[in-house]
Amino acid sequence: MSENFKRGGLLYEGKGKKVFQVLGHENKVLLLFKDDLTAHQGRKTGSFPKKGEVCKNISSLIFKYLKKEDISTHFIQDINSQEMLCLKTEIIPLEVVIRNQLAGSTANRLGIKEGTEIKKTLLEFYYKKDELDDPFVSEGQIESLKLIPDFNWLEPIKKQAFLINKKLQFFFEKAGLKLIDFKMEFGLFKDKLVLADDISPDSCRIWENQTEERLDKDRFRRDWGKVEESYKKIESLLYQQWGHFLKNNS
Amino acid sequence: MSENFKRGGLLYEGKGKKVFQVLGHENKVLLLFKDDLTAHQGRKTGSFPKKGEVCKNISSLIFKYLKKEDISTHFIQDINSQEMLCLKTEIIPLEVVIRNQLAGSTANRLGIKEGTEIKKTLLEFYYKKDELDDPFVSEGQIESLKLIPDFNWLEPIKKQAFLINKKLQFFFEKAGLKLIDFKMEFGLFKDKLVLADDISPDSCRIWENQTEERLDKDRFRRDWGKVEESYKKIESLLYQQWGHFLKNNS
Repeated sequence: MSENFKRGGLLYEGKGKKVFQVLGHENKVLLLFKDDLTAHQGRKTGSFPKKGEVCKNISSLIFKYLKKEDISTHFIQDINSQEMLCLKTEIIPLEVVIRNQLAGSTANRLGIKEGTEIKKTLLEFYYKKDELDDPFVSEGQIESLKLIPDFNWLEPIKKQAFLINKKLQFFFEKAGLKLIDFKMEFGLFKDKLVLADDISPDSCRIWENQTEERLDKDRFRRDWGKVEESYKKIESLLYQQWGHFLKNNS
Repeated sequence: MSENFKRGGLLYEGKGKKVFQVLGHENKVLLLFKDDLTAHQGRKTGSFPKKGEVCKNISSLIFKYLKKEDISTHFIQDINSQEMLCLKTEIIPLEVVIRNQLAGSTANRLGIKEGTEIKKTLLEFYYKKDELDDPFVSEGQIESLKLIPDFNWLEPIKKQAFLINKKLQFFFEKAGLKLIDFKMEFGLFKDKLVLADDISPDSCRIWENQTEERLDKDRFRRDWGKVEESYKKIESLLYQQWGHFLKNNS
């Protein structure tokens, strides 16, 4: 760990990450990417060596790319192979999911074939409540039931989510990958909306463009094997395409 | 059955109703209200004598009231104690739920206490697919996944649902009852949007205003007893208040 940023107390431990306070820096946190893999609301668990590192590297590259594209995120800098330094934000308790092509829970719930093309990009909200398994919610529910402290942030969140999707579709496409869907979380830092949490193969669906081979956590969820190999393939393809371009930007 | 409107083939049998073609009247159907009660996606079943008649009477009174209030519905006239004559509409495959106060599935899914006041009336959509247990859907999903043939009907449906809610809140209030939530279905008849299906204690939550005693299907769902008595109480209170006023309107 860099000498300048020493871990303080553990603020939160999630399925794939730990979040630490930074000593002497009230406005900053350290994100540590764990080697754990979980699925089906934690009922299935696993891991592979350096999984945390691979996800940190992918997430970090994405944040650097988004910064170049003038998207505000909580990312400040890499610290070491598994940790990054971020702004400490007030998290808005919504998971924001963008779907460019249909897969996963929504396909199952609505009885529509996985892989179905979506003409108009779909944005979904899930209410962040572990004990309720993060239920799917509508904008009406978010507003009427006051699921977030200030409903006025909803429109800016939607606008930003669609914009980030456009940027990331290009980012993955250039590396020979297709961004099927992904999950974002947003936070407020000094009354400004920033992209928070992380974006990695744990929270995206990423298919190889040519072969449609699936390279994300579905390989683990569905016992398809080659989880480690696939995560590393994403990392390698993204760094081949973008590593040099972004290397002075950490 | 009236001599003028003879049952043709069975078009559809649902949990609480049968829908018949009318001989010689292509644009009309007969709705027969069954004595069956079902809950929990059909896993719990029951019945009581004249349950169909009670629900038909309540539904019929509601349609007559709405007609007086210039709301377009599929209702034409009563036929006998269990049947009504309606327009044959092209049903839009959405259940439209209005919640004035929180109860039931949404309260459970989101971990919010039943009975919580809702400041801004909540409108929810459920996708009508029996085999999927009518999943909750967002407007974004309805649009992006083309869950209804013409998305342009969504705004008129919402507007009409809120208007009907206002009318029915008054209608129940005057009879000493509180409309907690209710489900509607809409259909198209000659390119015009009309309220279809039925509105009865099977598909509403209705609490007595003073005592907050629950008089609807929750009594059956939750094994609270007095189901027959409660349905009949609703019927009786509504007819005391509105029966005379509406009697020349069948």
